[in-house]
Order: sequence, then C-alpha cells, then structure tokens
Amino acid sequence: MKDAGIDRVEAVFVGNMIATEATGQGHLGPLLAGELGCGPVECVSINAACASGAAAVRQAFLAVASGQYETVLAVGLEKMSCLDRNALTRLLATAADAELEVANNATFLALNALLMQRYMHEYGVTRKSFYAFANVAHENALMNPYARLRERVSLECYLRSRMVADPIGLYDCCPTGDGAAAVVLGRNLPRRGGILISGSSCASDSLSLQERRNPLWLHAAEESCRSALRQANRLLGEVDLLEPHDAFTVMAALSLEACGFAERGRGVEFASEEGVGLRGRLPICTGGGLKARGHPVGATGVYQVIEAALQLRGEAGPNQVPGAAVAMTQSFGGTAATVITHILERC
Amino acid sequence: MKDAGIDRVEAVFVGNMIATEATGQGHLGPLLAGELGCGPVECVSINAACASGAAAVRQAFLAVASGQYETVLAVGLEKMSCLDRNALTRLLATAADAELEVANNATFLALNALLMQRYMHEYGVTRKSFYAFANVAHENALMNPYARLRERVSLECYLRSRMVADPIGLYDCCPTGDGAAAVVLGRNLPRRGGILISGSSCASDSLSLQERRNPLWLHAAEESCRSALRQANRLLGEVDLLEPHDAFTVMAALSLEACGFAERGRGVEFASEEGVGLRGRLPICTGGGLKARGHPVGATGVYQVIEAALQLRGEAGPNQVPGAAVAMTQSFGGTAATVITHILERC
Repeated sequence: MKDAGIDRVEAVFVGNMIATEATGQGHLGPLLAGELGCGPVECVSINAACASGAAAVRQAFLAVASGQYETVLAVGLEKMSCLDRNALTRLLATAADAELEVANNATFLALNALLMQRYMHEYGVTRKSFYAFANVAHENALMNPYARLRERVSLECYLRSRMVADPIGLYDCCPTGDGAAAVVLGRNLPRRGGILISGSSCASDSLSLQERRNPLWLHAAEESCRSALRQANRLLGEVDLLEPHDAFTVMAALSLEACGFAERGRGVEFASEEGVGLRGRLPICTGGGLKARGHPVGATGVYQVIEAALQLRGEAGPNQVPGAAVAMTQSFGGTAATVITHILERC
Repeated sequence: MKDAGIDRVEAVFVGNMIATEATGQGHLGPLLAGELGCGPVECVSINAACASGAAAVRQAFLAVASGQYETVLAVGLEKMSCLDRNALTRLLATAADAELEVANNATFLALNALLMQRYMHEYGVTRKSFYAFANVAHENALMNPYARLRERVSLECYLRSRMVADPIGLYDCCPTGDGAAAVVLGRNLPRRGGILISGSSCASDSLSLQERRNPLWLHAAEESCRSALRQANRLLGEVDLLEPHDAFTVMAALSLEACGFAERGRGVEFASEEGVGLRGRLPICTGGGLKARGHPVGATGVYQVIEAALQLRGEAGPNQVPGAAVAMTQSFGGTAATVITHILERC
C-alpha cells in the first residue's frame, strides 16, 4: 500500500489453499482486514488450489473492472511449515481428483512423475534435458533476496540428486514453505509508472489427468493464454518474459508448449537451446520461480505478478530483463485443471 | 440453466466452506465444470465461512458487472453428513477466531450462546421471546418441499426442548446437512420475467466477538445493508421480505436491528408483535430459513437468493408473500464477521 501511494483499500481478496486445515483458521478475510486496519471492507477467500494466489489477483481485477471499487488489495498467503510431511502430502492431494486419483493412492507428486515419464517416452528425451529449468530458476534465485533456495545447481548435482518419484529428482520439484505476498489493484492510483494488467483469464480442464485425451497437452493453459492475449491485444511474440508455474520441471516445459512459445514436445529443447535465462529468447522464472523462490501455495500467484511488475518497472536489479515491456504470468491449480494467465504491461 | 433458458455458461463460481476436509476434495471448480459439461470455463471456489454461498453469488455478480462475461453460474454446496459431530464442530469453528476464541475452547455454538445470553441480559427479555423466529421458520417450512425439517413447533415444545448451550435450546439453532443450490446470473438472459439484482454488498467486522465495542451490534450487517440499499436506490421501507441468516434465533433478531427493520434491542419484540409471518409487517424465512429449510453451509446463501427470486416471480406457492416486489437476502460468515447483502427486484 505504501508502494502504491495509498492508505486505504475498499476490498481485500485473499488467495489461500489449506489454512483451514493447516492452522484451524478458515475465515481469513475478516482476520486480515482487521489486522490491516482496513475497516469494514469486503474480504473473501478464493481457493483455486495451487492457483489460489492468481485467482485472488483475478477476482480483485474483476472487482475493479466491475466499477464497484476504485482500489482493492489482492493477498496470497500460505502456512505449510506447521504440518508434517504426511499431512501436507494429503492436503496438497486435495487439488487432485479425490475419487479417480487420490482414492487410488496418487499423490500430487506421483501425478507429476507420471506426466514426466510420459513426456520422456513420447518425445524421446532424457531426464538431463529438464536440467535447463532447474538451472535457470536457481541461477535467478541467487540474486533475489526473497528467494528460498539461493544455491547454484550444476548439471552433475542435478543428475545425481535423490530420486523423489521416478523420474522426478530433488531438483525437478519446488520446495514447500510459508509465505505471503500482496498487490494493490485500482483505477487512478497515485503512483506514477504503474503497471497495467491488460489481460486476465482463467480456464479449466478436467480435474483428473486420466480424463484428458492427451495428458501432455495442457488445454486450459492454451485456452487461458490465448484469451488473455486477445484481451490485451497482444501477440505471443510480443511477450518479453514469462513467469510459468514451474512446480515441477515438466510443468514448465508443458506450459511453454501449451502457450505456443515452443512447439509440441519441444519445450525442454526450447529451454536448453533457445534459452530461458535473463538474456535468452524468453526469460522465465526471473525471481527464481516456484523451484527456487519457493511455492507457498496461496502466495505464489501473487509473487509471480509482483516479479513481473518489478521487471516492467525496471526494478529487478541484477535480474533485470533489458527493455522488458510486456510480461506474462501463468499459474496452475492441480495438474493444470485450473489455469490463470495475466498479461502485464508498462503504462 | 434450464430455468434460465440457456445451455451454456462462461464461468462457474462455487461457494463452499469445508469440502477439503470433509471430503478430501479441495479443487471443486474444475470438478464441477467438468461434471456439468461446461467446457474449459473459469471456475473458482469462494470461502467466506457460512456466507460462502452468498459470496459465490456476489463474485458471479462482479464477474458479469465487469463486462468479462454475459452468463455465469453461482453454485453453493456443502457435504456435512460424512463427518461425526466432533469433527464437524471443529471445522465449523474455523469460522471463528482461532487464536482468540477457538484456542479458548469456544465452539461456534458457544459464541452464539454468549450473544443470546447477553441479549437477554441487556434488553431484559426471556427465552420465550425468541420463539417467534423458530415458529415462523417451521411454519414456512411446512409447505416447502425442499425444507429439511417440516414440523410445527409449539411454544410449549420450544420451551421444553433440550438445552444445547444455555440459553440456546434445540429450536434456537439450525440443523446441519448436505445440500446444493445454483443460480444463473447474466445480462440479456432469454427467460422472460427475470429478476434484477439491484444491490450487492459485502462488509466485514472484527473476526472475534471480543474485539467488538458492542457484540450485540452487527456493524457489518448494518454497513452491508446500507450499501446494498444505496446501490439499489431503495429505502428500507420498500423491502417486502427478508431472508436473514437465522442460524440461531438471536442472529435473526440482531439482523433485524442492524438493518434498521427493528429498533436496537427490539428485534424479538418486532418479530412477535409486528409480525414476521407471510402476512406480517416483514415476512422473513419464507422457505423455512436456515432454521427449518436447513443450513448446508456453502449452499445457504444461494438458497436465500433462490427463495427471494421465487417470491418475486410469484412462484412461491402456498408461501407466497402477496405483491412481493423487492426482497433482501442477508448472509453471515462467522458471528457476522463477513456479511453479504443482496437486493433483488422484479424487472
């Protein structure tokens, strides 16, 4: 709010996935509005699984677009450290299909392992090819003071790392953790050099992987990206950087393909050959991504928007993408059953 | 959708409070959109505790008002029967303040009992005075095929009923249960004689009762009601019927007072003397209210809107309020920490 140059908001939209179970506190809106001293403002929680933070940004966007409010706050938050591994695994699995997937003992990690296995089989690539995603995230996190994991990961380290769920190794998956992030959305905000959200779109796919014709094609990501670009009146080629939902390296690859940045089956090749580093063809995960900045579920979608905004403002410090003018953020709920895409631009 | 004369919607907003814990299914949007055959539409869940259903209606309203969509679906749903009493009590308490209230062993019922105790003390009324609320709900439920409890409750029965949490007796509190409800919102819907949502507002209060200057004054209910009326350009006196959040009889009384239908401390008197029956001064709970129609948490706010719409259409059958033209619904999350008010009118 200080950054936006305001001292009050008219509504608060909270993105959160598991607070009810993790903390026993399910009624986050009034709690947050009260603690923030916002007065008797509107405040509701949005749950779109791992895309909850992006969903809060989108609901805030709709609320301002509706004309009911001038200035609103979107907050993403998650507290995961209070849970042991089993409890957390069980709760994260509520993002998957309870009857078709979880009842058959699929964890969220297992579903992503199946996807990565399938990807390697269908497109004839090896684990090594996915290193580019782990590498770029960890490289970019090195200089981000807000990142959770600030360490360089060599190819050797990546390949030798502990197998978590074959073929997903330790460096193919993001860490869990606690976190919170907030952005102010509004019309006529006093701050100069604000950022425009020119496109916002949410799309969905069948909840379970097994119901999809081709599990390697993220239909909702394609649909949501296309719709957001259309709203923004932008072409894909005009996007200067992407914050993808790289909870697992395979998800980053599939996101690049579904959006059209890479050809089908060429996501990993695109990352290693065309380049996804700060000076590559399409910079991604500029603050470290879910992989290295961290993935406190409800906060993540808001982090992505903040990182894109910092880039567009030219305030990304050593991680600045030169001349960044148009950014895309894409957040996945479940195995991309919910996908939310935002296009942000310099005003 | 059949009633609205449409065969597709562009987005689905789901109101739900406890599905993640109660059913292990936390990602309701894509599940529902998939089962409904809606295609890859936007679909997110809203949690505003016991006001979740109303919050879904409101988010749907904002989405249409934003201009992004023409036709959307608001769904409220809850499954509570799969939980035992202890688990349910614990989950419902997540609507209260975890640190200030629940940590001190307050259940949701206990908090309402404190409120009712205080009401009786401050305003010098006895338990008997609250009978009017239980009575009207049960009377109206008798003829509603969708009501959960279809039985008449005599004053004697009310007074002799089992004490649940002093002074809350069995007939002062609503039943739990499973349920679902849905409404279509849109511009230019084909159905003739549609209903206009002329006012929609959400306000909040401090999450815990103990932080409020006067726990008997529901500040958020006052604020939300005033704001919704202003939007609708209506006076309170023009409201023909009210669907209040009568989860407990004391809440119905406090709602009447906060909105201004009754003077402060005179809610129970208003109900017994001015009349809240179908031909009274202000008909309330025309389908049986939370008390007798039932309160499957996430569904309730949507039920209220449907009941108001049926009244305005003149389709409420034996429960029809003659000449109903303007209706108000009011839904509470927690002890009215979140309050959502809608004004509905005949087009």
